[in-house]
Amino acid sequence: MKGADTGRLGLAHVAKLHAYSPGLQPSGPGWVKLNTNECPYPPSPRVAEAILREVGAEGAALRLYPDPASSALRLAVARLHGVAGANVCIGNGSDDILNLLVRCFCGPAAAAGFTLPCYSLYPVLVGIQDCGAFAVELDRGMRLPVERIAASGARLFFLTSPNAPTGVGFPSSDILRILDSFGGILVVDEAYAPFARENAVGLLAGHANLVVVRTLSKAYALAGIRVGYALADPGVIALVDRVRDTYNVSRLSQAAALAALGDPDHHLRVVSKIKATRDLYIKMWSEGRGWFTFPSQANFICTEPRDRGGRAGPAVARQAFDFLFSRKVLVRHFPSDALTASFLRISVGSDDEMLVVDHTLEAWLKAPQSA
Amino acid sequence: MKGADTGRLGLAHVAKLHAYSPGLQPSGPGWVKLNTNECPYPPSPRVAEAILREVGAEGAALRLYPDPASSALRLAVARLHGVAGANVCIGNGSDDILNLLVRCFCGPAAAAGFTLPCYSLYPVLVGIQDCGAFAVELDRGMRLPVERIAASGARLFFLTSPNAPTGVGFPSSDILRILDSFGGILVVDEAYAPFARENAVGLLAGHANLVVVRTLSKAYALAGIRVGYALADPGVIALVDRVRDTYNVSRLSQAAALAALGDPDHHLRVVSKIKATRDLYIKMWSEGRGWFTFPSQANFICTEPRDRGGRAGPAVARQAFDFLFSRKVLVRHFPSDALTASFLRISVGSDDEMLVVDHTLEAWLKAPQSA
Repeated sequence: MKGADTGRLGLAHVAKLHAYSPGLQPSGPGWVKLNTNECPYPPSPRVAEAILREVGAEGAALRLYPDPASSALRLAVARLHGVAGANVCIGNGSDDILNLLVRCFCGPAAAAGFTLPCYSLYPVLVGIQDCGAFAVELDRGMRLPVERIAASGARLFFLTSPNAPTGVGFPSSDILRILDSFGGILVVDEAYAPFARENAVGLLAGHANLVVVRTLSKAYALAGIRVGYALADPGVIALVDRVRDTYNVSRLSQAAALAALGDPDHHLRVVSKIKATRDLYIKMWSEGRGWFTFPSQANFICTEPRDRGGRAGPAVARQAFDFLFSRKVLVRHFPSDALTASFLRISVGSDDEMLVVDHTLEAWLKAPQSA
Repeated sequence: MKGADTGRLGLAHVAKLHAYSPGLQPSGPGWVKLNTNECPYPPSPRVAEAILREVGAEGAALRLYPDPASSALRLAVARLHGVAGANVCIGNGSDDILNLLVRCFCGPAAAAGFTLPCYSLYPVLVGIQDCGAFAVELDRGMRLPVERIAASGARLFFLTSPNAPTGVGFPSSDILRILDSFGGILVVDEAYAPFARENAVGLLAGHANLVVVRTLSKAYALAGIRVGYALADPGVIALVDRVRDTYNVSRLSQAAALAALGDPDHHLRVVSKIKATRDLYIKMWSEGRGWFTFPSQANFICTEPRDRGGRAGPAVARQAFDFLFSRKVLVRHFPSDALTASFLRISVGSDDEMLVVDHTLEAWLKAPQSA
């Protein structure tokens, strides 16, 4: 078969897939990068120390495979959340965990559910697995449609809480009502929970159908090292471990994550500062500018810009996005989601970065194209 | 659903899976570890330097996501093999690549094929994907059954070359015959090819149904950082990229791999030394001891121990394994594969390690249990 069309050999559903579309990672200098909810502050200084220790003299330790179970990290996560090691599985980022959950529970006869909007990776994972999908739409009130989720018939339901890209956190009382009435697995994706008032970890005891997913990418400032984890019933963890790649987390990532978890003071200082900045700008943009802004419990702000004429909408949001982009300020616009197409999602940056984005929005309001 | 049996919610085929069984990673000191084909020598000193550079002051760069495409590494791999960047995809270890290939090409109506024996991860990946499987058995002659593979009807066929765990390399002329007659994708898993006389990279031009998979775990001494890659037709690479996790390779792993590829002299020195040690011990064990030993082209030796009474077989191999283990020498025994159940697979270690394993085998021959 010389030079044949290999495309026809790929599975039909894979050939039709649209890959997940990540936020732009600009390589040049001078950008204010508030588009992928990274942490504006560095990780604990213990992380760099731990990496250097793991690299050792001339990198000799790197010739050896990592611990396949990430055992030390698993136990540290368990201690952090007051659960057992058997309740924890470590992933190559939380995306790895989300993918493994789909592979364990979803198929042509076992649908995955999610809200709209949600973390936009879920529909991609559903597409790769070629399983059924059940979408539950949210509105600006962001009340959780408990009954519709419970009655969805999905084998597994993904709930981003706090939600992405609005930032709204769902009350634990509502999550509890789903757990008690839903016949499938509820995955509460808590990537942003360290910035929120509530989380679902306390519901794990007594709810074998709950999986809580966390990441070190946001609140631990470690997006670059790819570590996330699942907290769940040992039966669910055992399934995930069975489909997980044996050596999914590198030696350096295990060491870095362990060091980050070992410095809770640094973590809490960073989280506290980001929350304060977030709340300040939510107030400035909602009350000061009069823009509808979701009451975010995450490390980003989802706000609906209004132009000088008081108009809002997808075209206005795009215009504001383009203006910011032209001034090297990167934020995110999700034009394909009905609820948030007229919004911008702006990651909470440092004080300096927030001043730049605010001043640039002010300049946009004064610019001719916002007339 | 409080405390319900979540097992029943898992997909039936996942609940029945046996996970891949990696070689033991002992944590205590004093072990001679020759069980997972790691490199006995450290990676290029440039690796440690590159990691320190990437960590930067206080690890600040780690707060940012990695390049989703591993672009710089992709180009370095392309240059190394004289192909284009569009012919390359980087994985979180080559296991990641193998898994993605199964997800792109295999399903209930599209079987995966492999030889027996082979890298034992393939049947695990087949099980996770719940696709059909077609196994082609090899014998001690290790002649590649070209016609049976071509007629297998598999959508994708995995060929470990050099083979694991025998170490025998298959001739490119045979691989070419498969490529010209097989209607599916041929994946030549070249984890050990840097130690071999031949490889299949030169066959990529003009054979869109060939995928060559490589790893930095063995010949670049970087098992701990998890980087592997695929070389293939751009159509195949595009499919793999579509099912690949966006941020599958960490910042530190990308930097480390790039540095390792940038030091070909170190790489060639290490490979050359390992080949010399391998050839010496193959000769010693086959000619000196009279043990059947495969003509390995890899960084390990697969030999069939005979006890003092001249007996060989699975029980003798187990006895030798246990004796080595009791003296803290770790090698590998694969009791479930018919062809190699009476063999030990011994990774090529440093000169000191090889002396220890050889002396310990000598002690086993003299011990009462080998009578």
